[in-house]
Parts: sequence; C-alpha cells; structure tokens
Amino acid sequence: MRAAIIGYGYWGKNITRNLVNILGLKNIVIYDTSDKALLNARADQIGIETSSDVGAAFRRKDIDIIAVVTPVSTHYELAMKALKAGKHVFVEKPMTVSVRQAEELIREARKQDRFIMVDHTFLFTGAVQKIKELVDSGELGEIIYFDSYRVNLGLFQHDVNVIYDLAPHDLSILNHLVQKKPLCVRAEGFDCISSGMESVAYLTLKFDSLIAHFNMSWLSPVKIRHVMIAGTKRMLVWNDLNPEEPVKVYDKGIQTTADEEIHQLLISYRSGDIYSPKVVNKEALHSELEYFVECISINIPPAVNTAEEGLEVVRILEEANLSLSKGAGSPVFAGGAGQRYAG
Amino acid sequence: MRAAIIGYGYWGKNITRNLVNILGLKNIVIYDTSDKALLNARADQIGIETSSDVGAAFRRKDIDIIAVVTPVSTHYELAMKALKAGKHVFVEKPMTVSVRQAEELIREARKQDRFIMVDHTFLFTGAVQKIKELVDSGELGEIIYFDSYRVNLGLFQHDVNVIYDLAPHDLSILNHLVQKKPLCVRAEGFDCISSGMESVAYLTLKFDSLIAHFNMSWLSPVKIRHVMIAGTKRMLVWNDLNPEEPVKVYDKGIQTTADEEIHQLLISYRSGDIYSPKVVNKEALHSELEYFVECISINIPPAVNTAEEGLEVVRILEEANLSLSKGAGSPVFAGGAGQRYAG
Amino acid sequence: MRAAIIGYGYWGKNITRNLVNILGLKNIVIYDTSDKALLNARADQIGIETSSDVGAAFRRKDIDIIAVVTPVSTHYELAMKALKAGKHVFVEKPMTVSVRQAEELIREARKQDRFIMVDHTFLFTGAVQKIKELVDSGELGEIIYFDSYRVNLGLFQHDVNVIYDLAPHDLSILNHLVQKKPLCVRAEGFDCISSGMESVAYLTLKFDSLIAHFNMSWLSPVKIRHVMIAGTKRMLVWNDLNPEEPVKVYDKGIQTTADEEIHQLLISYRSGDIYSPKVVNKEALHSELEYFVECISINIPPAVNTAEEGLEVVRILEEANLSLSKGAGSPVFAGGAGQRYAG
Amino acid sequence: MRAAIIGYGYWGKNITRNLVNILGLKNIVIYDTSDKALLNARADQIGIETSSDVGAAFRRKDIDIIAVVTPVSTHYELAMKALKAGKHVFVEKPMTVSVRQAEELIREARKQDRFIMVDHTFLFTGAVQKIKELVDSGELGEIIYFDSYRVNLGLFQHDVNVIYDLAPHDLSILNHLVQKKPLCVRAEGFDCISSGMESVAYLTLKFDSLIAHFNMSWLSPVKIRHVMIAGTKRMLVWNDLNPEEPVKVYDKGIQTTADEEIHQLLISYRSGDIYSPKVVNKEALHSELEYFVECISINIPPAVNTAEEGLEVVRILEEANLSLSKGAGSPVFAGGAGQRYAG
Repeated sequence: MRAAIIGYGYWGKNITRNLVNILGLKNIVIYDTSDKALLNARADQIGIETSSDVGAAFRRKDIDIIAVVTPVSTHYELAMKALKAGKHVFVEKPMTVSVRQAEELIREARKQDRFIMVDHTFLFTGAVQKIKELVDSGELGEIIYFDSYRVNLGLFQHDVNVIYDLAPHDLSILNHLVQKKPLCVRAEGFDCISSGMESVAYLTLKFDSLIAHFNMSWLSPVKIRHVMIAGTKRMLVWNDLNPEEPVKVYDKGIQTTADEEIHQLLISYRSGDIYSPKVVNKEALHSELEYFVECISINIPPAVNTAEEGLEVVRILEEANLSLSKGAGSPVFAGGAGQRYAG
Repeated sequence: MRAAIIGYGYWGKNITRNLVNILGLKNIVIYDTSDKALLNARADQIGIETSSDVGAAFRRKDIDIIAVVTPVSTHYELAMKALKAGKHVFVEKPMTVSVRQAEELIREARKQDRFIMVDHTFLFTGAVQKIKELVDSGELGEIIYFDSYRVNLGLFQHDVNVIYDLAPHDLSILNHLVQKKPLCVRAEGFDCISSGMESVAYLTLKFDSLIAHFNMSWLSPVKIRHVMIAGTKRMLVWNDLNPEEPVKVYDKGIQTTADEEIHQLLISYRSGDIYSPKVVNKEALHSELEYFVECISINIPPAVNTAEEGLEVVRILEEANLSLSKGAGSPVFAGGAGQRYAG
Repeated sequence: MRAAIIGYGYWGKNITRNLVNILGLKNIVIYDTSDKALLNARADQIGIETSSDVGAAFRRKDIDIIAVVTPVSTHYELAMKALKAGKHVFVEKPMTVSVRQAEELIREARKQDRFIMVDHTFLFTGAVQKIKELVDSGELGEIIYFDSYRVNLGLFQHDVNVIYDLAPHDLSILNHLVQKKPLCVRAEGFDCISSGMESVAYLTLKFDSLIAHFNMSWLSPVKIRHVMIAGTKRMLVWNDLNPEEPVKVYDKGIQTTADEEIHQLLISYRSGDIYSPKVVNKEALHSELEYFVECISINIPPAVNTAEEGLEVVRILEEANLSLSKGAGSPVFAGGAGQRYAG
Repeated sequence: MRAAIIGYGYWGKNITRNLVNILGLKNIVIYDTSDKALLNARADQIGIETSSDVGAAFRRKDIDIIAVVTPVSTHYELAMKALKAGKHVFVEKPMTVSVRQAEELIREARKQDRFIMVDHTFLFTGAVQKIKELVDSGELGEIIYFDSYRVNLGLFQHDVNVIYDLAPHDLSILNHLVQKKPLCVRAEGFDCISSGMESVAYLTLKFDSLIAHFNMSWLSPVKIRHVMIAGTKRMLVWNDLNPEEPVKVYDKGIQTTADEEIHQLLISYRSGDIYSPKVVNKEALHSELEYFVECISINIPPAVNTAEEGLEVVRILEEANLSLSKGAGSPVFAGGAGQRYAG
C-alpha cells in the first residue's frame, strides 16, 4: 500500500512520521506547493520522495491513500479529487467548511466505493477510549451533563475562529460517547482583541436529556483541558494535562425521591470512593493510521472517525456559526439559537 | 451600640458570633420564629438574649442595627420595617428579590438617614482585596475578560435556582472591580434532575469592552472556584481553593500590531514570570461587620457593599431570570438576551 | 462521669470543647496555674468551673478522669499523682520524657486498676483508620517501606527538638500499622539557625523486613505531610493536605524472579489503576475522647493509644536522642546508631 | 570538527541526535560492539556512519571528540584511550567508578592539553540556570539547607545502586550552586527487594554551615523530583515535574534575635509573596554539547561540567559507598560516616 500526504506543516510532519513507520519510507510521497516545506520533509525523512506537483498525487496509479493535511478551506476540493481518482482519503478535522461539502464527499465515497476517515485524533487516545468503555459499560448511568473547559493563551488563527479551532475535539468526543443529535445549538463569541475573529466563545448543545457546554478561549493565562461528565449513576472528570491520573471516576450522585405526603422533592447525595483507571499511553495518531490502513487492507469501512461522524461535527460548527451571526448584531457580541429544530 | 439578628440559621450563627465579639454579648439580641433556632443560639452563646417576637426588634428603642439573615423573599419586608423604625440594616445577599424592592429600600434609607449594607462577604476577603488593589493600580491594564467557574455537587435549594445561589458572589466581585454596567445580559439554565429549579446555568454579560462569563453548577463531582481575569497588560487567576497561592498574576499578554504593508494584523505573545502575592488570611465577615459598626459610629455611609451595589447585583439577577424565561419555551432549556439595552 | 483538664493552652482548649460536648459543661473542671489561661477558659466556655489549685484535682473524689495537657517534662509527675489518686489518665503525646517514666506509669496504672490513654490523635482520623483497614485486610501485602515527609516553617519549640515535636505522630502511626519493634534506630539532627535545638532531623528505623524513614524540618518554605507505604502487593500515598483524596492506593508493584539459567534476578513492574477510598471526615479528637469515656464506663481497657503504645513511641524517641548524641561530637552535626540491639 | 559516539543506547541516541544537528550528519561516527545498536543508529539517522570496531575511534586522525556513553565501569578505560589518542572527551555521569580513576584522567587531559566535559546535563537546564542566578545574585542569602527528594518506581539497575543512579544529578547541582566541599558524608542504604543492590538510600552531607539531605528510592509508587533550598534571606522550591512553575521563590524566612534581658533566643517568622520566575524551556543536552563544541573551537576549557566537578561528584559517591559498607554489618542495613575529615 502506498500513501501520499498533501501538506507538510506541523501536523503533516506527524502524519508522515507515523505512515513511514507503518508503510515504510519508500511507500510514502509528500506533496506541498511550498519548496521550503518539501525541504523540511527531506531533512526530517532522509530519502523520502517529495513533489510540488500536487495534481500528480491524483494521477498516480500506485497511490492508494491520500492524506489531506491542508487548511480547512481546501479539504473539500482535494478530498473530492482524491475520491474521484479512486483513492481512500484521510482528512484533517474539521472535515469541511460546510455540511453540503461533507455530504457531497460522503456521496462520492459511496459511489467510488472508497473510505474516508476524518482525523479526530482524540478518539484514539487511551483516555477517550477508557471513557468510552466506562460509558458503554453503563458504569456512569445515562449521561446528563457534559462540561468542557478548553482554554489557553493563543494561538490566534487567521482563517478560523476559536470555535472551529477548539470545538471539533470535544464535539467529536461527545458524539462518540453519546451518539445523539442535539435539539438546539447556541453559541456566543467575542472578538476580545479586535483581531477580526472570535477569540473567546461559549457553545451550548441541548439534547433530549443531556446538556453540553463548551468554554473555549485563546485568552486564558493558563492552559486548561478539563471535561466533566455527570451520569445518573457516577461522575467523571478528564483532565488531559494530568499525566498521572487523566481520568477519575467519582462514585458520587444525586437521588431524587418524591415525598407524596409533603408534595415535595427530596434530594439526597451520595459520595463514595474515587477511582482512576490506568490509561494506555501510546501515540493516538499511530493507532489511528494503523487502523485506517488495516480497514483498507481488509476492505471493511472504518467504524470510528467515519465520514458521517465528521459530517456531524461540521453540522454543529455550521449551526454554531449561524447562531453567532444571529446575535445582537454587533461584531463583538453575538449569540442566538441555531436553526436545527427551532420551531 | 446594640444589634438585633433576625434569623439564626447557618449564616446567622456566624454573624452572631462576630457581632458578639465586636459589640459584646449583652448588646446582641437574637430573633427567630423557630424555638429550636433560639435554643441553638442560647447553647452557642450562653447568656445571650433571644426572642420569638420578631416585631419587638423594630419597636425596641435600644436597638441600632438590624441584621436580616432570613430567606431572600422576606428581605424586603423586614428591611423596610427596620428602616421605618430608624434602624441601620445589614442584609443578606441577594439584597431583595426584585429591582423595585431594592430601589424602595434605598429611597427609604435616604429618607430615614440610615445605612444599608449588603452582605457580599467576598469583598472583605484578603484575596478580593488584593485583586482590587492590583486592578486599581493599573498593573493588569484594562480588564477585557472575566471568566468564573463556580461548581460543586449540590446543595440544591428549594426556593432559588443555581443563579440566585451562586452568581451573587461573582457579580458583586465583578462590579467591585470594574464598576461598569453591562450592555447585555444573557443566561441559559437547565433543570438537569427535574427538581423544578435550574441546577446548571451559564450567564454571560457584555460590557463596553469586557466580556464576563459565569459557569454555575450543582452537578459537578468536584468543587471548583476558579476565576480568570485578563487585562490588556497582565492576567490573573484566582483559585479560592488553593490556600497557599489563591491569587496568581501572570506576566502574560497579547499584542496586536497592524502591518500596513501586508494589510494584516500581527499578533504576538508575551510570557514572563508568575507572581503570587501574599494574601491576608482573616475572617472576612468579621472585618465587614467591624467596618459597618465603625461607619455607623462615625456616621459616614459604607463605601463597600453599599445598597447601590446590592441593587446592581439584583438588577443583573432579574435580567438573567428574564433571559431564562425568554428561552426556547421549554422548562428544561431556556435562554435569550435580557432587556436592558436591547434595541 | 466527671473530668479535670490540667493545662488550658492551645490543645487543652480543644480537649475541653470535646469533653464538654461529651460529658456536659457541669462535669468538667479546668486547672491551670496561669490566671490568664483560666480567664480564657471561662470566656470560651461560659459557666465552666476553673481553679488554679492543681493539687485539688487529685484530692477531689468526684473526678474520674484527669487529662494531662501540660509540657512533656511534667507528664510523669502529674499522671503519677492522678493514678495514685485512683483517676483514669488521658495524657498528651509524647507520654513521658523517658522510657523509665513511662514504665513506672504503666506499673502504677496496673496496681491501681486504672486506664491510661495516650493522645496520639492521628490514630482516630478517618485517613489512618482507612490505612489500617487496608493494611489489615492484606490488600497491600507485607509492608516493606515507610517514608514520611513532615516539614513546614517553624514553629520552633523552646523545650524540645524537631524529633520530639514531629516524630510522635508518624511513630504512633507506624506502630499502629505494623506492630513490630525496630532492630535499629538511627537519627541525624541539625541546629540550622543556632537556636540550641535541632530544627532539621532525619530518623531511620530498621525492622526485620521493613525500612522506615522520617524527614522532619522546621525550615521548609512549604508545608508537606506526605507518607508513602510500599507493600509487597500494592503501594499507598497519604497526603494529609489533600482534603479531596488524602489516601491513594496504587496498584503498582515490583516482582523479582530468579532466572536459573542466566543466574540473574529478573525484575518486572506492574502498574494498574489508582484508587482513592472515601475517608470519613470527623473530628478525630472527639472520637478518641468518646472512646476513652466509653472504655471507662464499661471497664474495658482501651485497645488503641494504650500506655504500651505510648511507651513504644517514647522508647524510639529516647533511642533517637541517644543516636543524635553519639554523633560526630559537634552540636551542629550529630548521628549514630541507637543502642537497642547493637551487637 | 568530527565526533565519535561510543555506545548507542538510550542516552547515546540523544547525544547523537544533538551532535548531528550541531556538526552535521557526515561528521558523526557511531561505535558500538552490538550490531543491533548500530542497526538502530542507522535507522534513526539514515546515512550515518557506524562501526563495531571501537578501537578505530582512537586511531582515526579525523576525529576530534569522543563521547563515552557506555556503562560507568568502562568510562575510565575508554576516556583514557581517547585522551592518549589526543581526543577531547565528553563522558557520561558519573565520570568514573573511583576518585583515583578520575584524577588520572584529569592528569592525562592536562598532559595532552585536551578537554574533558562530564555530562551532568541538569546544569544546562533552564531551571538550574535560573536557580544558580538566584543564588549568585544573593537573593536567597547564604544557603543553609538543601533537601532533595528524588524517587520513583524502578528502574532497578544491575550494576549500580540507587545512589550511583540518582545522586549524581543532585550532587552536581549542589556543587554547582555552593562550590564547597562537605565536612562529612553519611549514607544509609537498603536492599528492600533482595535484588543485590540498595534500592532505597538516604545520603546526608554536612558542610560548614549547610546541611544537605538526599532521599533516593526506586520503590515509590509516585515519581517525585522535589528540591528545597533554604537561604538566610529567602527560600526556594524546585519541582521538576511542574512544567508551569518549576521554580518558586518564597519570601519567607526566620529571624533570631538574642534577648539579653531574658537570656533567650527570640525567633520570628516572615512570610511574603511567592514568585515563580520564567524558566527557559530548551533541550539542555543541546545547549551543553553546543557549548563543548564552542569551547574546543576557541580552545578555552569548559567552565561548567568540568572534569574537576565530575571528580568531586565521584568523591562523594565513593565516600557514600564507604559509609554504606561501614554500617551495622548487615547487607540490608548499612550506615556510618565517611572518611573525609573524620577526626
């Protein structure tokens, strides 16, 4: 099997390193329109094949997989060309700029009988896999509350706002865990330093019996990666910056009982042990690419990070941006409910 | 000087202990309609005068101060009676249920030439006083971002939602630091366990050049008291649960420069030392009551926790509730912009 | 039952508060030679009986228990008088200055058929009780390593060195957990600020198959209360300053297997989940005093914090001081093995 | 300039990567007696020259530097051959097994007019450089107390005990900071799992007016890298596992004043702000090797990590082992004062 990587920036380098390890150096070709990027590629992987003629990637018969690691605005066009050329596609997150684009890619992939995998790398981390295991086993009960805090200082992006930058991680994780569609999407965003892009944003999703909130910021002096998940039975905190104990399960809960005599709700609390399961510590991107290569080799479509999951993330991002634009009319302050099921 | 305390619950007990220390045991009278509460008062403070005839507090000529430490729905009536009887009033937060009530109390206090102090105790803590000092000295620059995370497991309240329970703390602190009025108030709230009250809520205030967000929850397995404040020069984190270093000042910042040639905004980051000022560790409530007693004795109105500040907090709470009620129409999911300056 | 407390300082105040709660105000008498201390006692506990005639405590027939809460140099004399007068004795830690004194008290208690309880309060904390439970259940395996780090800034004592100040806590805990006698006691101590007392000390105990080390200091800028216990099966960390998770059990271990072919020891590591059991949070001193009162009322001697356990702590302290004095001869640097079983 | 690396294990790989970056791929040769190690080298650095004929490294005229990255028992022989062949030597820590060996290497280097640099990498970290700066500026006052806690689970070594494994780091740092020689060296060590090597050890150094203690263990469930340094003016904590704030300076101190009237020492405490200086985050090994290459190119001997500093670390290790062997006679329990200046 042979793979082409289009785009040799920060993340393209990581994808290259792992594909070289999985498929072997001589089965990888790097495409980039920047000569400097190609020079870097050849310095990092001595002997690797590179080319600035990106179109050649689609024409070559010996290439099976194309990894699209370019700015999001170009994902659709490159992925579409790859599919039409009969290649399998590994595409960076978010999958596309719009829902329509993502849907067209999915249609084309079906037509061509090829696979798309969207690189929501977090789903292959030991922490998220452990959380998924805990949710699926029923140990937490039904999930009713998801609260994510993902803030740091910068890096300000020129082409996307803080929601497009940070939300795909948590949205893909939430989708993976609960596999439900939100009833309502609401976002607020603020361009705190007049950079032309929202640098602070708050996103709220309402599901049937679940509330999810995402606090995203490029303006925090401290880096925080903190997710709380409350289930009806147990609660969980995932602190991605705590290498010793990333996931903690709290045997805590709230019980409500209706007291018929006094016509009142009685609320009681339960507080027990805390348990921090061992989390496998391996490079998630390696596992993810290895999985995609295996899917292709046995001709079974990926079950994780599918194109449909990628689409669902794009759908929420699109609705979040719509919600932003329906705000109070000021470029600084925006907010309102997205379209989805608004009556 | 002699003081009456109306209401001997959890917080009334603390107010009593401090007033006994400041004014002497024989200058304090406890009023409560519950005999059990009065029994507790006499056990805690052997020899203290107690009475279940609350009306007597207003009639007695020898009482100068009345501390109203009862459920919020009764604040207005009790404080009004106290003012009409010519007493100074120390009232629990939030000051009243509605803006109209708070405004009437302020009018009556002016008419009677008496003082009202609202018990936003946090303003007398060493941490908040240090933060105020840092803001006023200009060390942080202009405040552009305030993000509060105040979550824990329970305690669910029967009569108020999580906003009325937790927001008064942060709102009084924010008002104290920036003394501006918000242009827009927006709240979302969720009744996650069908208790009839919002147990999770998100509140956003937009000011002229400042965004404030408040994440409040009774549904978090861990207790978090974390406030981030970004100024144009420096940034600050206040972790109220870190006794060693509650306040940390980060010499971090973002600079934007317009590059005229490429018509682009250049963003650069600065990251320097971290500094954790020593914070005085004394009982805030004691300092606060001592201050109120001194204000009365020298006949100068309080400059901190004034009735006007109390009113401003009530105004935002009222607008937050209005925003909740204008939501998508479901009791579970609510949200929308408050009235204040909506065009 | 009626109790006399001799000595109303910082700790005497806590013992009084708890005994008042357990036995009732009118069954407590406070003795202290300082009029100021007695004034404080009467202010703290309005209506309590006090007296500066300490001798009367022994003469009064209506007193059953005497709590000795005075400097350690006076414990022996006061406790002996109390026993000879037929009283039960609750004595502060360390029990006495010397082994001989402790042994005489034990003999006298047996002769008088009275109980002595030594106030190693930590044994009644939720954390130590949980650790004891874990050790006794065999969950940790055999204990082979105990490492305590108990440091802070000051408070320098005038009459005892840092070992007498801090070691009794950990020594009583270690004795409670393993109930073995050390084969060798070795201590080093340093008078870092020329105060006339060792302010930094290191104590090492060697048991049959267990090593225990105690790092004690009045010279650390940060307060640390950190105990590690390694068993042959699992390991444990107790951080007394972490209120959320004071005790953590690590499913970690080391296995050694002898490889006969290569005549070498093969060492392998096991690393699994971390588990933080819920620890009961109540006032240890209250439980301890309640227990002693109950022991007396049903006439069964205490099984925890016995005089024999108090003696064992004193024995190690005495040997530690002997080890210090056998050092290099300088008041600054001292160290050497204690006498116990030195060949 | 051209360098040969002898030994391509875990650390040899890092040295190679950095020397390749500094001198260029074609100026590096890897020597190792293991073909597997050489295969790894060629995979890591495609195109690099490798050889299993270690003797050739000394014979080749075009090699200027030899990096000795082999087990400590071989350092002396390889470094001596390199010096005799006129090469500069970069040698892993500890420099040699014995003081005698280190002294002979120093003599030979002087004779050959060649440089030896000992790889105590920590001295080139941003944290240690910042601490050195703080000490040299006098900000801490005179250093009176150094307490290191360096523990983790494993990795058990076959050829050296825990002191040789872990102490060189802290000893080189302490020497670097205070540049004094200890008056007394005392060590205790324990073979807790009967592996034939001490896996837990405590080392104490007494200087003129400074006490240093080192707690080292392969038996701790948690990894701790914690150093406290108390000066007469301020105190410092270095937590090497806290990437955000590795170094904290505490404006804390103890003052003693002699009260002539009461013939007593009065002790007072000062507690002020905490300050966490920004620490440069770069790869220490890269800076160190770059520095050595520059020293050679301008023919000025290194001023940091000199052979003399390497010797001083070896001297203390030798004395520590002597102290171990003079212990109570049991292979399990050992302890006693080293020889240095024992009267």
